[in-house]
Amino acid sequence: MYKIGIVGASGYTGVELARLLVNHPDVELTVATSRQYAGQKLSDVYPNLRGLTDIVLEDVVIEDLVGRADLFFTAVPHQTAMNIVPAFLEAGKKVVDLSADFRIDDAEVYEKWYQSHIAKEYLSEAVYGLPEINRAKIKEARLVANPGCYPTSIILGLAPLLKNGLVDPASIIADSKSGTSGAGRSANTATLYCEVTDGFKAYKVGDHRHTPEIEQEIGKLAAQGVTISFTPHLVPMIRGILSTVYAGLVKDVSQDEVDSLYQEFYKSERFVRPCTPGTFPSTQFVRGSNYCDIGCKVDPRTKRLVIVSAIDNLVKGAAGQAVQNMNLLLGLEESAGLGVVPLFP
Amino acid sequence: MYKIGIVGASGYTGVELARLLVNHPDVELTVATSRQYAGQKLSDVYPNLRGLTDIVLEDVVIEDLVGRADLFFTAVPHQTAMNIVPAFLEAGKKVVDLSADFRIDDAEVYEKWYQSHIAKEYLSEAVYGLPEINRAKIKEARLVANPGCYPTSIILGLAPLLKNGLVDPASIIADSKSGTSGAGRSANTATLYCEVTDGFKAYKVGDHRHTPEIEQEIGKLAAQGVTISFTPHLVPMIRGILSTVYAGLVKDVSQDEVDSLYQEFYKSERFVRPCTPGTFPSTQFVRGSNYCDIGCKVDPRTKRLVIVSAIDNLVKGAAGQAVQNMNLLLGLEESAGLGVVPLFP
Amino acid sequence: MYKIGIVGASGYTGVELARLLVNHPDVELTVATSRQYAGQKLSDVYPNLRGLTDIVLEDVVIEDLVGRADLFFTAVPHQTAMNIVPAFLEAGKKVVDLSADFRIDDAEVYEKWYQSHIAKEYLSEAVYGLPEINRAKIKEARLVANPGCYPTSIILGLAPLLKNGLVDPASIIADSKSGTSGAGRSANTATLYCEVTDGFKAYKVGDHRHTPEIEQEIGKLAAQGVTISFTPHLVPMIRGILSTVYAGLVKDVSQDEVDSLYQEFYKSERFVRPCTPGTFPSTQFVRGSNYCDIGCKVDPRTKRLVIVSAIDNLVKGAAGQAVQNMNLLLGLEESAGLGVVPLFP
Amino acid sequence: MYKIGIVGASGYTGVELARLLVNHPDVELTVATSRQYAGQKLSDVYPNLRGLTDIVLEDVVIEDLVGRADLFFTAVPHQTAMNIVPAFLEAGKKVVDLSADFRIDDAEVYEKWYQSHIAKEYLSEAVYGLPEINRAKIKEARLVANPGCYPTSIILGLAPLLKNGLVDPASIIADSKSGTSGAGRSANTATLYCEVTDGFKAYKVGDHRHTPEIEQEIGKLAAQGVTISFTPHLVPMIRGILSTVYAGLVKDVSQDEVDSLYQEFYKSERFVRPCTPGTFPSTQFVRGSNYCDIGCKVDPRTKRLVIVSAIDNLVKGAAGQAVQNMNLLLGLEESAGLGVVPLFP
Repeated sequence: MYKIGIVGASGYTGVELARLLVNHPDVELTVATSRQYAGQKLSDVYPNLRGLTDIVLEDVVIEDLVGRADLFFTAVPHQTAMNIVPAFLEAGKKVVDLSADFRIDDAEVYEKWYQSHIAKEYLSEAVYGLPEINRAKIKEARLVANPGCYPTSIILGLAPLLKNGLVDPASIIADSKSGTSGAGRSANTATLYCEVTDGFKAYKVGDHRHTPEIEQEIGKLAAQGVTISFTPHLVPMIRGILSTVYAGLVKDVSQDEVDSLYQEFYKSERFVRPCTPGTFPSTQFVRGSNYCDIGCKVDPRTKRLVIVSAIDNLVKGAAGQAVQNMNLLLGLEESAGLGVVPLFP
Repeated sequence: MYKIGIVGASGYTGVELARLLVNHPDVELTVATSRQYAGQKLSDVYPNLRGLTDIVLEDVVIEDLVGRADLFFTAVPHQTAMNIVPAFLEAGKKVVDLSADFRIDDAEVYEKWYQSHIAKEYLSEAVYGLPEINRAKIKEARLVANPGCYPTSIILGLAPLLKNGLVDPASIIADSKSGTSGAGRSANTATLYCEVTDGFKAYKVGDHRHTPEIEQEIGKLAAQGVTISFTPHLVPMIRGILSTVYAGLVKDVSQDEVDSLYQEFYKSERFVRPCTPGTFPSTQFVRGSNYCDIGCKVDPRTKRLVIVSAIDNLVKGAAGQAVQNMNLLLGLEESAGLGVVPLFP
Repeated sequence: MYKIGIVGASGYTGVELARLLVNHPDVELTVATSRQYAGQKLSDVYPNLRGLTDIVLEDVVIEDLVGRADLFFTAVPHQTAMNIVPAFLEAGKKVVDLSADFRIDDAEVYEKWYQSHIAKEYLSEAVYGLPEINRAKIKEARLVANPGCYPTSIILGLAPLLKNGLVDPASIIADSKSGTSGAGRSANTATLYCEVTDGFKAYKVGDHRHTPEIEQEIGKLAAQGVTISFTPHLVPMIRGILSTVYAGLVKDVSQDEVDSLYQEFYKSERFVRPCTPGTFPSTQFVRGSNYCDIGCKVDPRTKRLVIVSAIDNLVKGAAGQAVQNMNLLLGLEESAGLGVVPLFP
Repeated sequence: MYKIGIVGASGYTGVELARLLVNHPDVELTVATSRQYAGQKLSDVYPNLRGLTDIVLEDVVIEDLVGRADLFFTAVPHQTAMNIVPAFLEAGKKVVDLSADFRIDDAEVYEKWYQSHIAKEYLSEAVYGLPEINRAKIKEARLVANPGCYPTSIILGLAPLLKNGLVDPASIIADSKSGTSGAGRSANTATLYCEVTDGFKAYKVGDHRHTPEIEQEIGKLAAQGVTISFTPHLVPMIRGILSTVYAGLVKDVSQDEVDSLYQEFYKSERFVRPCTPGTFPSTQFVRGSNYCDIGCKVDPRTKRLVIVSAIDNLVKGAAGQAVQNMNLLLGLEESAGLGVVPLFP
């Protein structure tokens, strides 16, 4: 049994990690931190965990906790992560960081979209933790930068097309819609029940921080620099991201060919499910699970492809993908602990 | 007091017409039909109207009802409308048809996307009822084709740009999201509470019937043929459409110039509200009202404009716009009966 | 035109007052305060009001604003209200207070459930503002204590029974369910979208502060002291309260007799709608309106009556009732400005 | 590996059984029937199951399928169940019936609340499948009548009190609230998204068919005949039942004593979780799981106890409890396949 720590266990991503880890056959949760709730049982803050774990939340005192786990998840905001991740690495621990701090290869780009970086020396070492794309590198890493939720849905949706040169990277428009859990658990007027329910809106139009992360990774797949339009929206639902991605075709291709391409590209992947041809995904069918479902439509009228992908933002978009990365880092079965069936209805 | 009839009063659009008409100062509701609920009081089917109207639903027997109103709303499905609208016109009545049957100028296009048309002779006469664009023609008409909900949001969003030649019509992508009331009140597994809640999905990807209607009308504004990508999505909310529209800029333009353009273009329009610069609309702020709110972002990175527009699909997207058209047809104050303040929260 | 001020205009109750007042034919909104948003336009904080009012929020400096209105709504938390209401009264203004501070006749009871009271001398003067029960007194008052949302639904539901001695007051159990807007607009983890959606819970079981208010008012109707069980619950909806009230019958009575009793008791009331016999209310059919809908079931098996009443907590449960009280205080038509049709769907 | 059949696999209860069984270590799903979707893969009807089962739905031809499983779940409407259950029993199979047909001991009572019964000879044999109460009998049974969702929540909430004679059975009032999945997947106007969302209502006030089932089982616990008030309500949420139960105390008892009583009564039960004293359950904390959470409040003012219990209606209220019963019938670990952690948020 490997010992696992969660730094930042009382946010939605943190408790989602706990939900997955309490049922994981090969690891045990030995450390869970929370500044706000230090001293309380995690299961008193999140009564869904009652009877499943007795772990007590503690303050983040790295020297006290670093020795009590083999691998740490850092589920803290960006800028906080860069302040604590190095200490774990220096102590010989593996880290899956769920913040944005180690996702951007180029410190200048990071500093343009976020703020100054104080641990740049780790940027080149960190592996972008999308197992379907970077599995081999992840297995060898000690620091995995767990991808953002929006980028996961968009990159997995576009990868087969970009790898096969079917679409013009300059034409890509990603229109994404996220459930409200993506905004976290901070008390905030904007995410009150009454401000979200029975409403729909765009936010951060043209300047969301996931933009450079998406451009970096699809640029690698396309083997060229890419600039995209990306618009996130807030959906009155708890979990789920659905991305609708538009891309101009650079050659004639039939619907059947595209369907086959996705089936083939993802045939060995446990967590990517191309939809039955002619159908499209719904976030409802991945809720609570680590799946990414993808549908694709060739539109000969406009010579564009429309790709629709769906994930649970807290699972494949955060905690589930982090556990998948943990499994790879520790040499465990990649899908261990990730067998949760999507909850529908 | 003008006498008004609603054919198809027990669907969501029909009862929304009734909601607006019971408070209208210049008209009275004298006819309301429903095959399913004939013989029942409308306020027993929709108890929100209890105490506000005693009208009894009746079956559609045109010769019995045609003499009892000056103007008829036909709030019935496409194909049904074309079977009844001519009778009203021939009896000298004015008609606002809320179906798709008289929106498409070209019968061939209609028949390609819908089914065969049996009243083609009225197509050239019907006026597309978007008052902000066609006000003068509506005032002279006897048959108004009330626009579709998605087209209303998209056309109003794009009109200032197309009229001023700022964007390339061939580049337009409209990604729209609608509340569930747009699917009507028919018993249908797909729109059950449990099939919609906490979920988000695209539907009719690449082949929604509003596509030719949008293309026709923005083609007129652009003064050229236009082919667009249009993807509708289903949002777990009752009311509201938000359209996010992407269009390539054909010249350099600043954010300020675009903001001013919208303010100027709509400065005399009571029901179109350009957002405060830097902010974007939410469907919550138009709920229950006849407003269309519009925000716009110039993205110099991608040389695209992103336009976001929001309406209540049952009001500006259907019944409210129909009442606005009725007011124009009858020579009343255009905003009469449409003073409902958006309900928030 | 009377001039009206709202102290506390940026909470949900405050903006609901504004929604109603901008369409009121006989008053104009001249003062709107908000500590948090002072200096901003109300319509920038609540864009649903865009185009309907240009009023700018200001800080609460009583001597600056007291002369600029004839009547003030105080829509502030309890304890805050008692600190400002006297100043308005002393300046000769009328006040409708939406807090709990002047609802309880007995200062000792108030201090037991809330905290110490610093304006006790106004308690005997304040009139409990339930027009259907206290209309005559309200017309003569200068200070109206606007009822709580839960008490409004419960008292209106029970009044016909208590006035006619049909039920045993000691047997009353009120199980109430409220939408989330009742919790206000403060940033609070407990009312975040993700903490409320797809969930249902009881809160303040056995000790909610509306208990003594309900007991006081139904005690007056029953002409005896009353102790009740009252349990509030939080519903994943924005607006609405539904109260299910159980009361033991003290004599045999038929369903028809009870139905007739409610019809008769409320026959002159514009805002109370007994349901069609055999049907029960839903909060959906009062949404946005000032109605209270009531249904009643005689259960001969248990010799109990089950009364179900529904209101919109922000309208009949707060702002709408406050406007109704304002109309009475100013000698206006009681229903002026309250003609909003319930929004369904 | 035991072979298991689901008769009625395409309703919400049926697919919930499938969700639990695909992850069960000791059984395999070999038969799944659906009249409506015969010939289709279950995972095409419910894409959440894609990649987890390839089972094809088939029509219900009992002689074709009876030999292909060791135990059958009958997840069909009442009256349908009584027509097929006997055939399975006569073929030597065990049955967990999820309908109401075998829950009521007394055929006369059944026929009064439902309709005539054609398999009365099995009523005395059927065991009421509430494992926490009837575990020993279930282990010996061949036919288990799986309890209704409302009764499960109410009986588990009251059992410790009734077994210990703390409350007056004649005083019991159960006010229950259910998510919409309890209404099933039939196309029905009343359960459309727009008819449920942002609304709350009571239904079947005074005459819901679960009443005699509750009275029968709590009568056994109280060792006397019991007549209760029971009012179900519809909550705008997918899953969950919360029951608020009021009962008059027959002796003085402290909050601590009651808290201890629940802890002790359920100390060996894996699936019943008394809440931390002072806290009450929410349906959110049991979502997707087989737990029943219970909180209790002694109210000395009214000399009543208020008991609040929460379950997921599709799991502990249906499919999960059925799997728990299956495990007992087959001699498996009682909690096998039921380790799903509640999904929050």
